[in-house]
This record gives sequence, C-alpha cells and structure tokens, in this order.
Amino acid sequence: MTAARILGIDPGLRTTGFGVVESDGSALAYVASGTIKTDAAATLDLPARLKIIFDGVREVSARYRPTCAAVEIVFVNVNPQSTLLLGQARGAAVTALVAGELPVAEYSALQMKRAIVGHGQARKEQVQFMVMQLLGLASAPGPDASDALGLAICHAHASRALSAIAAGANRTPSAGVRYRKGRAT
Amino acid sequence: MTAARILGIDPGLRTTGFGVVESDGSALAYVASGTIKTDAAATLDLPARLKIIFDGVREVSARYRPTCAAVEIVFVNVNPQSTLLLGQARGAAVTALVAGELPVAEYSALQMKRAIVGHGQARKEQVQFMVMQLLGLASAPGPDASDALGLAICHAHASRALSAIAAGANRTPSAGVRYRKGRAT
Repeated sequence: MTAARILGIDPGLRTTGFGVVESDGSALAYVASGTIKTDAAATLDLPARLKIIFDGVREVSARYRPTCAAVEIVFVNVNPQSTLLLGQARGAAVTALVAGELPVAEYSALQMKRAIVGHGQARKEQVQFMVMQLLGLASAPGPDASDALGLAICHAHASRALSAIAAGANRTPSAGVRYRKGRAT
Repeated sequence: MTAARILGIDPGLRTTGFGVVESDGSALAYVASGTIKTDAAATLDLPARLKIIFDGVREVSARYRPTCAAVEIVFVNVNPQSTLLLGQARGAAVTALVAGELPVAEYSALQMKRAIVGHGQARKEQVQFMVMQLLGLASAPGPDASDALGLAICHAHASRALSAIAAGANRTPSAGVRYRKGRAT
C-alpha cells in the first residue's frame, strides 16, 4: 500500500468545497482545504461562473498535486432549475479533474457521512467535528471544506479496504498451520 | 461589421452536436459539422464520459478556430436524474469553450427555431431542411449537427441585429433631409 494524496471536491454553483488529505496505510494527514466561490460574481453569466469553478479546481490541483480525486455525487433538488445548475457546476468541476488526467472516484453524501460519522443522517456540524478529530485539527474547517475533506477521507478508507481485499486474495494459507475444523462456538 | 466564425453546440450526454458557420454581413457559409458521441463508451463512468465531451469540444475548437460560440440552453427533463446528467454534459461542453477563452452566447431551442424556421414549434426535420437551405448544402446534416448549425446561424442573426442597432445609435440624421411630421397613414 503506497501513500496517496487525495483531493476531495464538494461541487456547487455558488460554493465548491475542496480538501486535500494525505493517506499512508491507516495514517491520515491534513494538507489543505478551502472553497471556490462564484457568488461575488453573481452578475456574471453562467459560462463565466463555470469558468471560475473550472479554473479554481485546476489551480488547486496544480498547487497540491493530488494523485486522485473524490467528488460528491449530487442529488436532484426539489427545484428542477437548481438541479440543472448544480449539474452544470459539477460538470465543470469533474471536467477540471479529468482534463488533468486525475482518476476520479464518486461517493454520495450518505456514503461519506457513514464513513466519517458512522451513520448517513449526520448533520453538517457532526461532519465538521469528526473531520477535525480525524485530521487532528485545532479548529473545524467550514462546512463545504469539511464535506470535501470528508470525501477525501472516505476515499482513503475505501481504497484501504480494497487493498486489504486484494492482498487477502493473494494470500495462501501457510503449510505449517493447522486450522481447527467445525464452527466457532 | 467584421466576419465571424461561429461554433454552435447542442449539448447532450450521449450525443453533442456541433456546427461551424462563417458569417460576413448577411452572407453565411458552412464550414463543418458533426457529433461527439459517448454512447459507444456506455461502460465508462460519468467522469470518463464528461472527458470525451470536453476533449471533443476542445478538438473541434482547435481544428476550426471559431471566434465565438453559441450553446443551447437545456431544459428540465421529466426525469430529474436525466436533468442532472444533461446538466453535467452541458457543464463539460461550456467549460471546454470558456477554458479556451471563447465568448459563449446562449440560446434556447425556441429562440433557435424562431430564427431558423420562423416559429418555435418547428420539428427536428424542419430545422434540418432550413439549415440545408440557408447554408446551400446538397443534403441535410443529422438532427444534432443541424441543431448546432441552427444555433450558430441564430447567433449570426442576433449579432447582425445588435450591430445594426449599435450602428443606428451612432447615426445622426443628415441635415439636408426633411422628415414629414405626424403619423404614417
């Protein structure tokens, strides 16, 4: 198992959260986090706002040089027009990652919350608190940055689980060991 | 009024149509058209399909060097999940244009059909027929390419109208001309 530097992205048209985590075996280390905001640019048209998201994700990737990315799977909003805008924002963010040949994993908010807090109904503040604990931070990052860090940690856990399964599949029982037959009591 | 080379884009997750038109005053000339398809890649995940759209639009832009682009404004689908996918596909296409610093104009299908066929309820075949007529083509391009060419032509018309208004605003009445007062009968 080699070390990985994971860029988590929580996409949104107004605010896109990002968080970079280094994972080595079961060790996790905080690298950076923040947000890419387009609402100061509310007078801009949609293509210009998508460009801010694309350029922002590219800039973060260039600065922190992650080895892979984890992006939140967004969901349908009650307002269909918002769904369409959120979809376009996510399209711009994912495109910025794949344009740089970065492998992209996708996790739902439910999967991330289960990995970080232990259940899918966790509130924003619980994610912020657990991210702060898991990464040994003195204070909690903002909600969007915390979600992004949570996605990066979720991917670190998932990759470790997959590596363990792959390692187990290659392991053959040692010839000298005898296993007791029958069920465990 | 200078000549413009307009790249029209009709975005879709499975098929993105493109069409390049050169406009000089009221003259229009066909340059190229086609589609970017991701459905042969249906086994790929969403980020990989968004990359095909992004790379495809970038390739078309690099090959035909348009001076501006016109992208269809997509609408909410009856299926919210489809809306989310279409949004992401459009996000990837628009991002490919703005990443190349190309000015992007946006038109709805209704606006395009009004500009090409004369009314917003036109069927796909009517758009194909009128695009063929307007560009003097021997045969009609496919429906997605025709929609994209229609968007490029729509933008040529809109730009010409705007130029005419701008030119009109700068024009002062000639001193030698007398205008008849009162209403036209």
